Amino acid sequence: MKLTSTQINEIKEQQKQKNTTKRVTSPELEKILYEAMPVLDHGFIRVVDYMGDDTSIVQSARVSYGKGTKKVSTDSGLIKYLMRHRHSTPFEMCEIKYHVKLPIFIARQWIRHRTANVNEYSARYSILDKEFYIPDKKNLAAQSTSNRQGRGNLINGKQADEILNILKEDSERSYDNYEKMLNETYQGDVIDKNKQGLARELARMNLTLNSYTQWYWKTDLLNLLNFLSLRADSHAQYEIRAYADIMIDTLKRWVPITYDAFMDYRVGGMELSSKGKSIVKKMMKGEKCKYEDSGLSKREWNELMGSLGFTERLV
Amino acid sequence: MKLTSTQINEIKEQQKQKNTTKRVTSPELEKILYEAMPVLDHGFIRVVDYMGDDTSIVQSARVSYGKGTKKVSTDSGLIKYLMRHRHSTPFEMCEIKYHVKLPIFIARQWIRHRTANVNEYSARYSILDKEFYIPDKKNLAAQSTSNRQGRGNLINGKQADEILNILKEDSERSYDNYEKMLNETYQGDVIDKNKQGLARELARMNLTLNSYTQWYWKTDLLNLLNFLSLRADSHAQYEIRAYADIMIDTLKRWVPITYDAFMDYRVGGMELSSKGKSIVKKMMKGEKCKYEDSGLSKREWNELMGSLGFTERLV
Amino acid sequence: MKLTSTQINEIKEQQKQKNTTKRVTSPELEKILYEAMPVLDHGFIRVVDYMGDDTSIVQSARVSYGKGTKKVSTDSGLIKYLMRHRHSTPFEMCEIKYHVKLPIFIARQWIRHRTANVNEYSARYSILDKEFYIPDKKNLAAQSTSNRQGRGNLINGKQADEILNILKEDSERSYDNYEKMLNETYQGDVIDKNKQGLARELARMNLTLNSYTQWYWKTDLLNLLNFLSLRADSHAQYEIRAYADIMIDTLKRWVPITYDAFMDYRVGGMELSSKGKSIVKKMMKGEKCKYEDSGLSKREWNELMGSLGFTERLV
Amino acid sequence: MKLTSTQINEIKEQQKQKNTTKRVTSPELEKILYEAMPVLDHGFIRVVDYMGDDTSIVQSARVSYGKGTKKVSTDSGLIKYLMRHRHSTPFEMCEIKYHVKLPIFIARQWIRHRTANVNEYSARYSILDKEFYIPDKKNLAAQSTSNRQGRGNLINGKQADEILNILKEDSERSYDNYEKMLNETYQGDVIDKNKQGLARELARMNLTLNSYTQWYWKTDLLNLLNFLSLRADSHAQYEIRAYADIMIDTLKRWVPITYDAFMDYRVGGMELSSKGKSIVKKMMKGEKCKYEDSGLSKREWNELMGSLGFTERLV
Repeated sequence: MKLTSTQINEIKEQQKQKNTTKRVTSPELEKILYEAMPVLDHGFIRVVDYMGDDTSIVQSARVSYGKGTKKVSTDSGLIKYLMRHRHSTPFEMCEIKYHVKLPIFIARQWIRHRTANVNEYSARYSILDKEFYIPDKKNLAAQSTSNRQGRGNLINGKQADEILNILKEDSERSYDNYEKMLNETYQGDVIDKNKQGLARELARMNLTLNSYTQWYWKTDLLNLLNFLSLRADSHAQYEIRAYADIMIDTLKRWVPITYDAFMDYRVGGMELSSKGKSIVKKMMKGEKCKYEDSGLSKREWNELMGSLGFTERLV
Repeated sequence: MKLTSTQINEIKEQQKQKNTTKRVTSPELEKILYEAMPVLDHGFIRVVDYMGDDTSIVQSARVSYGKGTKKVSTDSGLIKYLMRHRHSTPFEMCEIKYHVKLPIFIARQWIRHRTANVNEYSARYSILDKEFYIPDKKNLAAQSTSNRQGRGNLINGKQADEILNILKEDSERSYDNYEKMLNETYQGDVIDKNKQGLARELARMNLTLNSYTQWYWKTDLLNLLNFLSLRADSHAQYEIRAYADIMIDTLKRWVPITYDAFMDYRVGGMELSSKGKSIVKKMMKGEKCKYEDSGLSKREWNELMGSLGFTERLV
Repeated sequence: MKLTSTQINEIKEQQKQKNTTKRVTSPELEKILYEAMPVLDHGFIRVVDYMGDDTSIVQSARVSYGKGTKKVSTDSGLIKYLMRHRHSTPFEMCEIKYHVKLPIFIARQWIRHRTANVNEYSARYSILDKEFYIPDKKNLAAQSTSNRQGRGNLINGKQADEILNILKEDSERSYDNYEKMLNETYQGDVIDKNKQGLARELARMNLTLNSYTQWYWKTDLLNLLNFLSLRADSHAQYEIRAYADIMIDTLKRWVPITYDAFMDYRVGGMELSSKGKSIVKKMMKGEKCKYEDSGLSKREWNELMGSLGFTERLV
Repeated sequence: MKLTSTQINEIKEQQKQKNTTKRVTSPELEKILYEAMPVLDHGFIRVVDYMGDDTSIVQSARVSYGKGTKKVSTDSGLIKYLMRHRHSTPFEMCEIKYHVKLPIFIARQWIRHRTANVNEYSARYSILDKEFYIPDKKNLAAQSTSNRQGRGNLINGKQADEILNILKEDSERSYDNYEKMLNETYQGDVIDKNKQGLARELARMNLTLNSYTQWYWKTDLLNLLNFLSLRADSHAQYEIRAYADIMIDTLKRWVPITYDAFMDYRVGGMELSSKGKSIVKKMMKGEKCKYEDSGLSKREWNELMGSLGFTERLV
């Protein structure tokens, strides 16, 4: 991640602010406010604003006149209760806003979370930076053979170099041609005074999907948790998980009690189907259970046993 | 509006907070933060939290690294442009939260605005206060003869007294019977030790629709403007307009530039249909236009001429 | 439930339709289309339109050109997989619309499900029918002593009669006074020619919360399932569950495969927290687990053991 | 647009369906149901399902028991009234579903309309077709000099050829390298048995933004109108307008009364600000108005005069 000196200064200016407010503040989150935390090779994520803290959840669950909190232990009990019973509306009472720089193909996954507010840098209006995501070798994996939407073994050696070369060369050539078609004074040079510049809204179509874009993204705490439980999950694509992992750190700073409840009830938890529950109940009583009698499909049986820590799998 | 001394103290406690933050603040809104502003006879509205200010709109429209604002005049020009062209997403980047006490029949109108977060005081879980909305005599109007969902002439004299008596007596009787059925220790008394108390979730059904409820209501600036353009409008029911009018004051304190643009482009503006536009264009060139040639219905013609300040009406 | 003869005829007219369409149809749902199925004492629910069936889910999950289905077994496997892994978007591709008559205090719970489209009968514009919900004796329960938002023992005998009398009398008196204040020609009579009629938008506030209202309510299949998993649950208030139970029947007719998956994975299933999972894993291996070492609160321990079919409770 | 013979047959199969239903049908829309209507060079749009027609709007606005319609003229009057007064909820009671093939850079604009349901063809899971959008020469325009997000003069001759060559070559090379990295048996060939295939979720990042994707997209009529009023507008990018224009045809077939009202009140209409209204009112009375006294910015004055058909512009 590289920022221009102007950008660095703008961020510093924001961080120097010392405003007085009657609103609740989240001291640990304030410490990293506006900071551009690097993600992937050129991306970053910054918390640029927030509203509320753990006490705001309690306050609205109780529809209270005051801060709605007497003891941390009471608040914590209530927040856990709300999380456990999926009483979701009080978690909507906190809001957070991020500034994110991310590859376009990841932005396309991210935007599928609709209950959020977004302003994206417009390539109709402006010119994108010359920055592309090129995976680190340790993340260059082959198609999984068991999971049609996942990764398998690492790709090493000469093939890895070939792939990385392709990605670099195609991105750069596409970008150079983007600039050529734009034919604009950008970063100093007019390319060809005898030619017109292709409309930006058209020229951008030549860019590759690993080009970086950026946006402001704002959501409430409930929808942030929904986002994180899907995108910080091991089934999520590594590149979006890299963002989600850092967002989980910001969650911990912002609303530590909610973070604990989230890790216990969502991230580390599991769901049992009706049939799965019957099996678990039997096995807890010491009865033997066999796949053949379970009513589960082979896949489902394997998923269940895997989640419960048994290592054998049906094939 | 009456608050208990506990409630008054809780509000004062909140107002005493002096937290330091790097976030932008809205000084004029801070002045009234948490204050219970009276509405109708027993209702109130309080701003209990907010996020962002006018500069946040500019910042996200530009997806900028810094505060995104150099001069107020530039910001103002951009905000007006965004409002005029209905570029709505940057206005979603600010958020506000209210605590509102309001009659149930008004809450039922309000809740129709779905893009908001709500936590309502639960009459399944708790007992409602003995407070009902009884209109002021100056708002006691007859059914409009021209508008099926509006008010006409004031109702005066003896009939007004009769109506107000009915409203008071029916509300009170219903509430007293609610308490009787609950048969709970509420505000000091157990009503009858030999009887059970009806479940709260059932007893509440005896209350009248002018009973007061309360909720936390949070929305983004765009949806607040949508709410206000409908509910502060002269066609809105007086009782919800009373809330919207105060919310417009909080809007002005919070985001003064947006407020100006809103008043100019939305509140004071009008829409012309294709046919309406033709008529206006002709009349601006000095041509005469007649209803018969306009292609408008009588009602539409009257609405158009009314909006443009002509006083004659077709009947 | 009573319908006027006009209403009965209007419904019959609709049911007589025999239109030809290239769209998929759901034959079992067609059988009951438009039928007013009674709920509570005066309420009903009718399916008035729908879009898609089980194959539509498969079709959109595969983004297929054709019907997207070869064998029912394949479709079924895919739908179960989608449900199990909370791949939710394909379930949004089916839509259903209900016409519901329901007491206002239940409408107020229902409307909290925001991802739906609603048109409610307007008491600003029209006059409500003289119909109130009076619970059946078998549903007249005392406040639960263990659950602040639930019901406990039945209320019997004389106290039950008293309560039912109160509910009836207060509803009727409030309604009669509503009519008196309206002073309109409604169902034949002008009440007093020398008086004005109070505006409908005001008069309605005198009605009790058990008055019946009605609305058109439309939602997609995913949000219907969310609604049903909350409102057909044993923790839901009986009066809304009465509607949800019938809606589950319509679900079964409409999308039988989805219905099966829903009953298995949602309705009959359970969630385990991270800590709960550890306990289950230990007990499945035959280890003893004690509350004291579990890291759970007493309440949480009881909830977990209850869900797993153990009958002892900590107090 | 080219479809495989399998796809053509799947579509024909769907079109052969003759199901009987009690639901309302839209005969003109039925005629083109499932048909792939070509857009741009390789794209298409198909209506794959719908729910409701004009009478459904009337029915829900009236919360009626029957079809809610006596005479077309009455329905038409009501629909116009609802449109004019932005009574929007009845328009949410109709639903439509499209299958769309479109370039990724257009999909990224489209997806910003959040109140819709979407299932996109997954390039994590599957392999995209070798199809790219290459503009027709008549749409190859230079950057506008007056509008930062628009197009100006056409680009002709040799420069046009150069640009089209760049677009073709870069897309094809990127795609060929995508296939090479995937190293999969796709359309017959294994590329290199001694190499692994890069995970699909990674390989896709090499594709250019003019690659075609496809999705199922479902929305209600209100949100369709919102989409169309923005995307069929002259300020919208040509490539998305090409889709919107065809969707307007489907709108006309589906709900002809709503279509008329939409064209009159939205598409052909205009908004006047408060200041703009004052000017119009003065000019209608024959008074002269000057920019200097208007309180408008130069840009705003020009926009207003332009909309009202005056040809002079301030510079």
